[in-house]
Amino acid sequence: MDEAEVPRRDERTQINEDERLGTNGRVSESTDEEALPIAEDELMAKVTVVLLEAALELIPEQIAGHPQVVRTARRYGLRPGEMLLDAGIHWKAMRSLEAWWRRGRPDIVHLSLLNLLEKAPVREGLAEVFVHLQDGRVIAFSPGVRVPKNYDRFKGLMAQVLRLGRAPPEGEPLIWTAAKDLRGFLGNRGLILLSEDAEVEERPADIVREAYETESAIGFGAFPRGPFSKDVLSLATKMVRIRGGEPLKAWDVACALSCALYDLAERLKG
Amino acid sequence: MDEAEVPRRDERTQINEDERLGTNGRVSESTDEEALPIAEDELMAKVTVVLLEAALELIPEQIAGHPQVVRTARRYGLRPGEMLLDAGIHWKAMRSLEAWWRRGRPDIVHLSLLNLLEKAPVREGLAEVFVHLQDGRVIAFSPGVRVPKNYDRFKGLMAQVLRLGRAPPEGEPLIWTAAKDLRGFLGNRGLILLSEDAEVEERPADIVREAYETESAIGFGAFPRGPFSKDVLSLATKMVRIRGGEPLKAWDVACALSCALYDLAERLKG
Repeated sequence: MDEAEVPRRDERTQINEDERLGTNGRVSESTDEEALPIAEDELMAKVTVVLLEAALELIPEQIAGHPQVVRTARRYGLRPGEMLLDAGIHWKAMRSLEAWWRRGRPDIVHLSLLNLLEKAPVREGLAEVFVHLQDGRVIAFSPGVRVPKNYDRFKGLMAQVLRLGRAPPEGEPLIWTAAKDLRGFLGNRGLILLSEDAEVEERPADIVREAYETESAIGFGAFPRGPFSKDVLSLATKMVRIRGGEPLKAWDVACALSCALYDLAERLKG
Repeated sequence: MDEAEVPRRDERTQINEDERLGTNGRVSESTDEEALPIAEDELMAKVTVVLLEAALELIPEQIAGHPQVVRTARRYGLRPGEMLLDAGIHWKAMRSLEAWWRRGRPDIVHLSLLNLLEKAPVREGLAEVFVHLQDGRVIAFSPGVRVPKNYDRFKGLMAQVLRLGRAPPEGEPLIWTAAKDLRGFLGNRGLILLSEDAEVEERPADIVREAYETESAIGFGAFPRGPFSKDVLSLATKMVRIRGGEPLKAWDVACALSCALYDLAERLKG
């Protein structure tokens, strides 16, 4: 696939996306694939935003030999195990997978992250963004990380993270596995779950403020259809809906939270 | 390119994206390529949001024979003239074009529209969304339009709109050419221009409220780099920045306006 040095609005982005991944982020000495320890300074009050049960995974071995998988992997010059499952490409191959209808949607994660990362509230440390996978793992993003705007590059980057547990493969991690399951990740923290089905309606700004004051995490679904798993529901300390229960896409929720984080930052500064 | 019936959160979207385009939208008897007349009911107070000088165009004839263009068109089974210029694919071919650095970024338009269309304020008629092209034309979107989430399908749809002046090609238009230039489109209305360089900072909610009260349009750039054209600047009745002048992507601005439109809707209802 052809790649571009795509021009962007600010100068810093003129460098190659891969180079960019090496230019900033947190310091860590650990380079193994285990969950990295949480640093002291992360214990300050922050708003934790978690994309829950994200439809993000590598091609499962079970369908690695499917003609559609083999053909598309060849087109991208990859082995099937190095490639993300993507319903936009593997729609036929994935129909044999269990619960296929809630899997293989990296676009949902991509669009949601584009609405949250790289904005002042995240860059300046007021909020942290995590992606919880359907296998339980929780992926962390450095406040300085820049996510590729190009969808194919984003998929390549996330495939690397899923394979190696981190990106870039060496040096300071900018994206890494923060926990092996959601329960361990949350510890004693509450989880405010955004759900269309919730009986209580709240304004995004109030949800974010409550999360900040109570040090609860805010979670929303990053899968295409259906309810949250029982595991996730059992961890929710509160369920709320926003926007009058309107059926929202994950990136709409991300947008609403992003605006609410700006509002909170303004209130804290002012 | 393989296409999927990608599962989504709500039932309506189980149908094919192209079929979807025929299911709703405004009534119009005109089917020619001219600007369609503005209907009476559009004169009620609405917030007009315009993506300005969008980096959206068909492959220019000048580079239609470039090997990179020919190769990528063949891969998608298209003629070069049927394909959108995309810096992610045509980065080499487009370097010979005048002002190449502000052209060929359909992704900017796609991500911005995904943050504005299909939300309650637009669906319920409080706001209307338009895309102003670098050739001057202003494209309108029906309040009920559903934009493809898949980037390749979005590009296919917009290529159709640029070729035929509308989509779908027959029947009720859901996307159509509303005006031949921005001046004609605005008429007597003001234009509140969002720009990082503006000296005045305002909250997105206040900008949207002012636009509603004064029936001014709100415009923001949908191109990757550089200043607005003199033509656009000459039409601005006010310039403001948001988010402390932080360098924002077009889809960040779209997200901020979307949240502010929800706030306005809430205020008007309450």
